[in-house]
Amino acid sequence: MPVLSRQRLTASIKKLAVACGASGDEAQIFADCHVHADLRGHQTQGLQIVNIVYEFLVNGTERFGVDTPVIIDKPGFAVIDGNYGVGCIVATRAMDHAIRKAGDSGIACVWVRRGGVFSMASNYTLRALEHDMVGIATENGIPFVAPWGGRDPLFSTNPFSFAVPSGEEIPIVIDMSAGSFSAGKVMAAKSAGEKMPSSHLVDGYGNYTDDPSLIEMQFDHQLNLGALVAHGTRGFGWNIFVEILAGLLSGMEASCNSIVEAEEGNITINHGQFFMAINIEQLMPVDVFKQKVDEFIRSVKANPPAKGFDTVRLPGENAAKTEQRYLKDGIPVLDKDWEDFLSICSTHGLTI
Amino acid sequence: MPVLSRQRLTASIKKLAVACGASGDEAQIFADCHVHADLRGHQTQGLQIVNIVYEFLVNGTERFGVDTPVIIDKPGFAVIDGNYGVGCIVATRAMDHAIRKAGDSGIACVWVRRGGVFSMASNYTLRALEHDMVGIATENGIPFVAPWGGRDPLFSTNPFSFAVPSGEEIPIVIDMSAGSFSAGKVMAAKSAGEKMPSSHLVDGYGNYTDDPSLIEMQFDHQLNLGALVAHGTRGFGWNIFVEILAGLLSGMEASCNSIVEAEEGNITINHGQFFMAINIEQLMPVDVFKQKVDEFIRSVKANPPAKGFDTVRLPGENAAKTEQRYLKDGIPVLDKDWEDFLSICSTHGLTI
Repeated sequence: MPVLSRQRLTASIKKLAVACGASGDEAQIFADCHVHADLRGHQTQGLQIVNIVYEFLVNGTERFGVDTPVIIDKPGFAVIDGNYGVGCIVATRAMDHAIRKAGDSGIACVWVRRGGVFSMASNYTLRALEHDMVGIATENGIPFVAPWGGRDPLFSTNPFSFAVPSGEEIPIVIDMSAGSFSAGKVMAAKSAGEKMPSSHLVDGYGNYTDDPSLIEMQFDHQLNLGALVAHGTRGFGWNIFVEILAGLLSGMEASCNSIVEAEEGNITINHGQFFMAINIEQLMPVDVFKQKVDEFIRSVKANPPAKGFDTVRLPGENAAKTEQRYLKDGIPVLDKDWEDFLSICSTHGLTI
Repeated sequence: MPVLSRQRLTASIKKLAVACGASGDEAQIFADCHVHADLRGHQTQGLQIVNIVYEFLVNGTERFGVDTPVIIDKPGFAVIDGNYGVGCIVATRAMDHAIRKAGDSGIACVWVRRGGVFSMASNYTLRALEHDMVGIATENGIPFVAPWGGRDPLFSTNPFSFAVPSGEEIPIVIDMSAGSFSAGKVMAAKSAGEKMPSSHLVDGYGNYTDDPSLIEMQFDHQLNLGALVAHGTRGFGWNIFVEILAGLLSGMEASCNSIVEAEEGNITINHGQFFMAINIEQLMPVDVFKQKVDEFIRSVKANPPAKGFDTVRLPGENAAKTEQRYLKDGIPVLDKDWEDFLSICSTHGLTI
């Protein structure tokens, strides 16, 4: 497994982005977002997604260099037309717009129409932390998840991030799919010939299974090829929450209607995104809030473990520790992801 | 099991509320909220909660007739001091304030400090539907739920509601606890000597169990008496989301710190609530949105059932059908709840 320094991985991804038409700024954001995912141990949202986005760029599903106009702009909310731009670039602009607005208005929501796949959701919520704000980021998209009680894919994995500034403790950073698993984890287990930790998959005949080899992760949700399953009625509720909040309220489509065949057999993803920033200082002194968050974190961590656990871990704790370790020791990337990346780069005559 | 008409149950609860010091308006809201819960089949949030709130009224934990000043009031958000008023009354005022503000600002968040237990969360989100808005309502409170991997109660069941206007279809109304079960369902199963459908309980020794008889549902979370368990890492994330959003951002406490002994051994609950209204017409034509929601609902319902299911049901579908049936046939209430209620009424010399 290759191990790369942050600097080298960033520079390599930037080179490819520029070769694909990105401006210097765009290339920096594109590289930072994906390297940050790998740094935080979200391996399915880092270099692996770069290779997938590359296919989108080749097919015209996503594009560098597009305008992303703010088409509705009110003090407390806005709607941005992502113009099928590269997901992480549009999403970064949207979150920064929410943060700017919340600086004045206290809270701000920004919806994105026609954005791209935004990879690691916490890339955006972590930006809010730098401004002592709470951040929310979520999107719908490619349908992989069946509703509770259903058989065929209908919802995206509906990634959801919620980040909360802390004082001395590691900030709380929720970053998870509303589905039982992320699509990347299922694909990774399938490639490795492994089973999932629970039977939250359903095959094409409606049988629950933990075997990802029975699932075809295709973009065309009409095919009867199995799916991930919502995590019970609670997970189902969350999937619907995200589908409405990010998908329909943005003015775009539910995941089940978001994929359309564009010209030449390529796809367009008409999904939506939702970002929110809550400016703590308009609610209470930031120090008071951070101290309360610290106390909350300590209370959670002091909870005696249940049988089978050694400790209670807060969301974001492992990711922050992984980031510190990888910054020092380098970032391990999967052989296949690195080989695919090098192969893509070589088609552009790039030396990495 | 007594079966009561909506009118009779409403009039009976109003009588008790007035006897406890409620104004006519307060009594109406109090009765409507709890009867609505029983009407929609949320039996643990209706008459059952009236009897619990009565204890709170006697002990001074909640009070009728208090001022609930808006202590921060900006175009897009507000904070209301509930002044330890009766939960459903403070919450109704807070949601209505959010709806008014969203009428101008497009979106509005309202936090409540020092509110009471608000019973059925969808009481408030359903109010948003009447204004063609999307509604969100959630609160933290009495700690009953252990974190994922932990043993002792730390979070409240963190009820969460999200309601979405539809056109011809039944509106989507999510109303569920972020914990694996509601506290009421666990208490009901315990009383009936039944097991829970999954092992999302943990006994005082850290063993997972489906046996509610091993759990003491006490208000003092320090006692080592078992707990509900967060529904895996996803449920844990949701619990934290609500604890921060409703509890800490309101300026109140996490559930684990929310219960304080007041004078004379009674408790004060320093929890928080969060309400949000999203005014659809500022994002897109309401008819367009409702048509999309209808299409989404039909797509979900058309999903072929997995083995063991006969159909896919949307959140709010059963509740709406139950409401129609109970409006016609009367509302069944549990013998014990009705006897307790009559006994309370008789102490006030009320004839029901």
